[in-house]
Amino acid sequence: MLDHITTPTLLLDETKCRRNIRMMADKANRNNNGLRPHFKTHQSAQVGEWFRETGTTAITVSSLTMARYFADHGWNDIMVAIPVNIREMELVNDLAARIKLHLVAVNIETVEALAQQLRHPVNIWLKIDTGYRRTGILPHSHEELDLIVDLIGQSDKLHFTGVLAHDGHTYKQTDKDAIRTIHHTTVFLLHLVRDRYKARFPELQVSIGDTPSCSILETIAGVDEIRPGNYVFYDLTQQHIGSCAFEQIAVCMACPVIAKHPERNELIVHGGSVHFSKDSLPQPDGTVIFGRVVELSDNGWPAPLEGIEVVSLSQEHGTVRASKELFDKYKIGDLMGILPIHSCLTADLMKGYVTLDGKQLEHLSGIAFR
Amino acid sequence: MLDHITTPTLLLDETKCRRNIRMMADKANRNNNGLRPHFKTHQSAQVGEWFRETGTTAITVSSLTMARYFADHGWNDIMVAIPVNIREMELVNDLAARIKLHLVAVNIETVEALAQQLRHPVNIWLKIDTGYRRTGILPHSHEELDLIVDLIGQSDKLHFTGVLAHDGHTYKQTDKDAIRTIHHTTVFLLHLVRDRYKARFPELQVSIGDTPSCSILETIAGVDEIRPGNYVFYDLTQQHIGSCAFEQIAVCMACPVIAKHPERNELIVHGGSVHFSKDSLPQPDGTVIFGRVVELSDNGWPAPLEGIEVVSLSQEHGTVRASKELFDKYKIGDLMGILPIHSCLTADLMKGYVTLDGKQLEHLSGIAFR
Repeated sequence: MLDHITTPTLLLDETKCRRNIRMMADKANRNNNGLRPHFKTHQSAQVGEWFRETGTTAITVSSLTMARYFADHGWNDIMVAIPVNIREMELVNDLAARIKLHLVAVNIETVEALAQQLRHPVNIWLKIDTGYRRTGILPHSHEELDLIVDLIGQSDKLHFTGVLAHDGHTYKQTDKDAIRTIHHTTVFLLHLVRDRYKARFPELQVSIGDTPSCSILETIAGVDEIRPGNYVFYDLTQQHIGSCAFEQIAVCMACPVIAKHPERNELIVHGGSVHFSKDSLPQPDGTVIFGRVVELSDNGWPAPLEGIEVVSLSQEHGTVRASKELFDKYKIGDLMGILPIHSCLTADLMKGYVTLDGKQLEHLSGIAFR
Repeated sequence: MLDHITTPTLLLDETKCRRNIRMMADKANRNNNGLRPHFKTHQSAQVGEWFRETGTTAITVSSLTMARYFADHGWNDIMVAIPVNIREMELVNDLAARIKLHLVAVNIETVEALAQQLRHPVNIWLKIDTGYRRTGILPHSHEELDLIVDLIGQSDKLHFTGVLAHDGHTYKQTDKDAIRTIHHTTVFLLHLVRDRYKARFPELQVSIGDTPSCSILETIAGVDEIRPGNYVFYDLTQQHIGSCAFEQIAVCMACPVIAKHPERNELIVHGGSVHFSKDSLPQPDGTVIFGRVVELSDNGWPAPLEGIEVVSLSQEHGTVRASKELFDKYKIGDLMGILPIHSCLTADLMKGYVTLDGKQLEHLSGIAFR
């Protein structure tokens, strides 16, 4: 299979990927959590089917365009986990007519626009900022929350469904206890908000979503639904955080070696920021790396090699620095396997996957003009 | 026009873009340099036509896929300015049969593979590492150079055309004298290599290519050809280096405002790392920014506002921090204009352009599965 690869290619190990999908489905079942996996990582109709085979019926996406794509592929319970873009009201209405659409609001202006312009009912969630400080309503902003909830209550199109958070700040941690603490704080804060409106909306749900928490915690209590996404592939960032082992990383770039520089033990691969993205991973010595090298075979790849790393990326070139011994193992024209720092962005750039048995799988970014 | 934009959109000011294209064509004419603009920044057949209208007949690209795209659009003198990927020999041969193809080599192994497997003649250039230290043959590696040149000389398919460099290290400079020094050093080193083989190959050319040097120097002497690319659009990085004024930046993202956080004067736009890329620009205070904000109108945009910047990007969210005054000017649902840090990567991600008069222009990444 590898012999047929001529250009930078994103390989997908279906066995590892299906195992990751199954692992989270089993955990959600054990904990009695609903599972609404985030599909922004893979953005692939075919990978979506692997989730369906484990019983998944509800999904999360990060744009209305992505919601339309998966609705077109038979998913009919979709949460768009980004504050609603009210300029896309036409698409909102189109989707609300076809599927069970869940929208997220963080501002009264957005809720007003929805209440006025929706033609079909939607499920509305309030996003609570439990510490990440990207977006969301602060849990103690009672006046703002009350105003928004009152407005939702008055609308016959808005069904107040729950409160949710995304703990993006777990991505900055590498200590399991720190991640557990963030998670428990979030659940506590979401309960405070939920309980404030419980009498009026007795079926309000609580939903959380980051891959580190969902990967690291064995017991996930007090939440109705979890929405992790990256675990479908994992990547070096998640391994660094402690969310996964190297062996769980299910995607790998295959990049042709195009130059060798023996005087500094550096190799150049065809594979740059238009393939990997510019995300990097800090190292103990203060430098950053852009990928780690694995030995590729037709059966996949093991854990990364020590002493060889992608140290720099430009648009189409990747610079790999190696020990003398590893430098000597690679020839011009060889394929080098490189684990990505951030699989979501690499997949978005690569626009599709090739499985180890040679199947081509699509990615939304390879199909649609966003 | 702006009223019809609903999702993150890459706007292209055709007037500014054509002015940039004309400026470099005029400079090359004045200096008697050949101009072989790098098309990796725009990757658009239609933008390519604007170059053709100024007399451009020869171009540079950064992958064989890109060469095929422009060959399909009537360009027949194309340099692929990356060390040849010998796994793509079939495409090399296909292109060599159709157009005047210029390839770049940095290793004897690559030249050997070409000499053995080429079925049609190509122009071969040696890339010399004049200080960037990404790739290229070191100018004092006489033994290596001699071996490669001998091999080229023995092949009836390889026409030794010249020596070239890419001064990527000018991108780290913000001082015009430093950039001039890098440029003059490069020309000196390229002449040393050229002169070594001049007796045997009297028509050897010298080619240089970075946008900072080509933008900043008024007099470009001693080179047969220049290959700048980014100047077609410029961006905040080039403005920071000193290559352009803000007014020359010809592309701008239009992003819907989806959330406002008055307690910290931060706005959230729909527009993240899948739209902008993760490239950032260091600030004097040690932080980095991911874009600067301009006031958009149907006529375009002026220089960026002071006191409002994109301070963080996640996959689909951009966080914009503003002064109180500017924060108050934006409403949920407004379009915010954001100048990109690195226009090449933003264009690659956005997969197409919308001009100020509403024309949709294509980008290779929106067409081809790479």
